[in-house]
Amino acid sequence: MSAPVPTGLAPGAMLGILGGGQLARMMALAAADLGIRCHVFAPEADSPAFDVATRHTVADYDDEAALANFADAVDVVTYEFENVPAATAAFLAARTPLHPGARALAVTQDRLSEKSFVADLGLAVAPFRAVDSLADLEAAVAALGRPSILKTRRFGYDGKGQVKIAPGTDLAEAYEAIGRFPAILEGFVPFEREVSVVAARGLDGAFAAFDVCENEHRDHILAFTRVPAKLGRTASDAAIDAARRIGEALGYVGVFAVEMFVLEDGGTERVIVNEIAPRVHNSGHWTSEGAETSQFHQHVRAVCGFPLGSAALRGRVEMENLIGDAALRWREILAEPGAHLHLYGKRDARPGRKMGHVTRVLSERG
Amino acid sequence: MSAPVPTGLAPGAMLGILGGGQLARMMALAAADLGIRCHVFAPEADSPAFDVATRHTVADYDDEAALANFADAVDVVTYEFENVPAATAAFLAARTPLHPGARALAVTQDRLSEKSFVADLGLAVAPFRAVDSLADLEAAVAALGRPSILKTRRFGYDGKGQVKIAPGTDLAEAYEAIGRFPAILEGFVPFEREVSVVAARGLDGAFAAFDVCENEHRDHILAFTRVPAKLGRTASDAAIDAARRIGEALGYVGVFAVEMFVLEDGGTERVIVNEIAPRVHNSGHWTSEGAETSQFHQHVRAVCGFPLGSAALRGRVEMENLIGDAALRWREILAEPGAHLHLYGKRDARPGRKMGHVTRVLSERG
Repeated sequence: MSAPVPTGLAPGAMLGILGGGQLARMMALAAADLGIRCHVFAPEADSPAFDVATRHTVADYDDEAALANFADAVDVVTYEFENVPAATAAFLAARTPLHPGARALAVTQDRLSEKSFVADLGLAVAPFRAVDSLADLEAAVAALGRPSILKTRRFGYDGKGQVKIAPGTDLAEAYEAIGRFPAILEGFVPFEREVSVVAARGLDGAFAAFDVCENEHRDHILAFTRVPAKLGRTASDAAIDAARRIGEALGYVGVFAVEMFVLEDGGTERVIVNEIAPRVHNSGHWTSEGAETSQFHQHVRAVCGFPLGSAALRGRVEMENLIGDAALRWREILAEPGAHLHLYGKRDARPGRKMGHVTRVLSERG
Repeated sequence: MSAPVPTGLAPGAMLGILGGGQLARMMALAAADLGIRCHVFAPEADSPAFDVATRHTVADYDDEAALANFADAVDVVTYEFENVPAATAAFLAARTPLHPGARALAVTQDRLSEKSFVADLGLAVAPFRAVDSLADLEAAVAALGRPSILKTRRFGYDGKGQVKIAPGTDLAEAYEAIGRFPAILEGFVPFEREVSVVAARGLDGAFAAFDVCENEHRDHILAFTRVPAKLGRTASDAAIDAARRIGEALGYVGVFAVEMFVLEDGGTERVIVNEIAPRVHNSGHWTSEGAETSQFHQHVRAVCGFPLGSAALRGRVEMENLIGDAALRWREILAEPGAHLHLYGKRDARPGRKMGHVTRVLSERG
């Protein structure tokens, strides 16, 4: 961080956020600490982020009049989700700084371009084949074997748009199940654990990664994150180096997450890149109490052109997602010493809905 | 906290806050973490807390129509300043729960009733006399000597409404200087240090005090807070016990601060109570990063009837107020490892105005 810092914004500036869910909400809370005001743009009138934003706009992402007003009212735009339509991003980027930029969206919105991008950097990924027809799928399964996973190229998250190709799976049915959309087939990777690197890149090119964290999913939804991850120094360094190279190649500004699989080949750990999320990430929620700077503060710093904060770990940390009814345990969690409750202000605890999370700092550093 | 917890509110509730300054703003930010929405009521259209509140009302504190609408719209009312007019408090308390209650306001709004209340609890205070005329002042100075301090009974803060009675001070001029308002004369106390106890009392009577902190004022405005205070165990225990007794005697619900002077009589430390603030307090700002639960989260927990959080200290902590132009150092502070910047979103850095603060956790606990 000794490099010259390009001129960025100053406290008092207005940060525009596309998307009004919990990630936007926690971004807005962090922005407030730094004297930054937020204008949240989202289609849903009951968006949780509206509760803590100075201004909000309820409009669709293709409403150009609303987007133009939004762009005029803010000093920089960021987003909480990777599926911002390319046309929306281009429309805004022509009017106001957009961080992270359109390239990060383009690469990560499409699993094929994402996998190709990562592989082209010389980083390990699961074997994959493009699937644009049933014939493609048959050829891909012949090449990569079973089990393997068929995934739509676009708009997949939390396990949606995916079908496992098991030994008995009918390929025509599987292709129907994902809606015959453009897809990729990913070969099976016998991974031991899932980890992620949440990192930030500043407007000045500075890079700061939080400690590698270990993720446990249930029903394809993140259930727990634990830090530090069960991962040796060499693999951990490789994971962070992969994130650094990805951030540089994208010319990235802001916080991003790289989800990885950990393989053990005869006692040697190896990480392979699974997915890039060009945004703050659920697996970085532990940073609010577990790191010197939270991922939300870090993202706001980056997109405003401020110096990045220290990503140092404060201790052994665990983050538990509160999905659906689990948030009804709020009083019990509030009574638990050392537990830090975060609720998202959502009215309706539907099954599978992320309602909040808890972080626990289990031991102090050092 | 094993006593039965009276039924309080639940996440999703609306907390009403009187006053829209930085204390209300930081309360609203903490409330959001717990899924509590805020409705801020303040007369100033550019109130910093409006930026992070779900709703706000711009109206005077004697606007009964606006107060009635406010009371209808919220589940509980709290406030960020002790000078809430008694009529306002009574009007609201008749319509919705008010925490802390009207008694805390009545006692602490008047220096004479406050000093008498504390003395009646058997706690040490500076010697004092009521002053309602120049003759009273002359008699009081004869009794308490010089130097001493003449203070208006009501509406004093940050050194306003005070005149020092030095050996050469003309008493008639001094009485004019405070506007001939009802006043008290306080005898000189040869104190070594100023400390405060920031503590909370829950709806269930639970009590939790943060560690005693040491305060350094400049021009009558808090400049630095350091924790732990330079204070032995016996005096520290006495300070916290004084806060506990004050909270109990007031039937208090919420966070409050007790400012105290530390005297050394022949090597023995002694604390005497100076002032009670029935609200979150500038000398508790260090808790945001320095304690397990911040004073703002603790206050929201208390007034909503939630269990209190742990007040445990995280390490050696220092809080620096950013007064006026000092906030222009924001970029330098952001670049300082371990510094946590909090800006209040105020547009205009007038001299003497509290623009933000910085906390530094200088060493981890243990």
